[in-house]
Amino acid sequence: MQPFDTGAAHERILRHVQQLIQLTEDEKAYFLEQLKPRVLRRKQFLVQMGEVCRFETFVVKGCLRAFAVDPKGQEHVVLFALEDWWISDFQSLSTEQPATLYVEALEETHVLQIEKKELEQLYLAVPAFERFFRLKLQNAFISFQNRIFSTISQTAEERYLAFRQRYPLIEQRVPQYLIASYLGFTPEFLSKIRRELATRR
Amino acid sequence: MQPFDTGAAHERILRHVQQLIQLTEDEKAYFLEQLKPRVLRRKQFLVQMGEVCRFETFVVKGCLRAFAVDPKGQEHVVLFALEDWWISDFQSLSTEQPATLYVEALEETHVLQIEKKELEQLYLAVPAFERFFRLKLQNAFISFQNRIFSTISQTAEERYLAFRQRYPLIEQRVPQYLIASYLGFTPEFLSKIRRELATRR
Repeated sequence: MQPFDTGAAHERILRHVQQLIQLTEDEKAYFLEQLKPRVLRRKQFLVQMGEVCRFETFVVKGCLRAFAVDPKGQEHVVLFALEDWWISDFQSLSTEQPATLYVEALEETHVLQIEKKELEQLYLAVPAFERFFRLKLQNAFISFQNRIFSTISQTAEERYLAFRQRYPLIEQRVPQYLIASYLGFTPEFLSKIRRELATRR
Repeated sequence: MQPFDTGAAHERILRHVQQLIQLTEDEKAYFLEQLKPRVLRRKQFLVQMGEVCRFETFVVKGCLRAFAVDPKGQEHVVLFALEDWWISDFQSLSTEQPATLYVEALEETHVLQIEKKELEQLYLAVPAFERFFRLKLQNAFISFQNRIFSTISQTAEERYLAFRQRYPLIEQRVPQYLIASYLGFTPEFLSKIRRELATRR
């Protein structure tokens, strides 16, 4: 595993945060002090169903998926996260109830984590972070709305093409059977769509 | 139609807001000044697909549904809103792109609306509203996560029962065929579930 590069990670998260809010030098220093680095091996879990999720997590490097498991043991991918994404079982983090999702690293992944109580303190110490996370949640909400709309109103092929266009990096880094699961397709059905698209080119 | 009772509406929204944040008398007055009352008849649209949604809307009295229309003209209920809910086409409001949803009053409905530019001003003038809407979005995000999880992991009957338990008021006020649409059932399938539940009591 690669060692965690704290300097580069801090630079990355500050650049990310400052796309939405302005911070003073003191606020930056305070924020960075709250963050804990963590390295996950491939297939290691960040969150496990049934355990309370206590961290908000920023992806510095790597790739993860969140998934739920149905009563038959079948996995369903709910979302992916790459560099510069935040991921957690948001419900569990907020309510302190056991997680209903798993979050698993798909490759070696470096993250910065902030514990719930430190995050609450951060909101009080640096209120600009209220704005930052409001805007992040706003975007997440919009992509949920998009996803519902796309499920309702687009054909399977259109949904696959929209996914590829919206998340080109995920398409390159994630195995096809997981993309199929995210889209609610069987792997065979996704292969069929891909073959049809290829012959039409 | 009943006249809009501004005093009662202001009292209601202040009570609602102050469950999550504290406001000074000046902040309350400033906030209330930004709000515009509106009365919708039954079947009147608050948001129409294709038009840019310019308002965030708080329901004082009444009931609405947000729905999308698929290419075959079939309607799909995305969410309901009752008293004390906020509703808009959030994507359209944020991005200023045309709405992908309709929002329609299911009964005579009284709302308070705040225009996007006044809302942006409000965030600057009263930063506690950043927190307020962050917490509101957080709850919305959690119910989306719940809904995805429930679709994946529960039987149709369990989903219907969970809906009834979670939203008892909606169950009482909204026609069954719209609840069927929200749950992704045909009306016939929902009737069948209800009959089965009734015979088991």
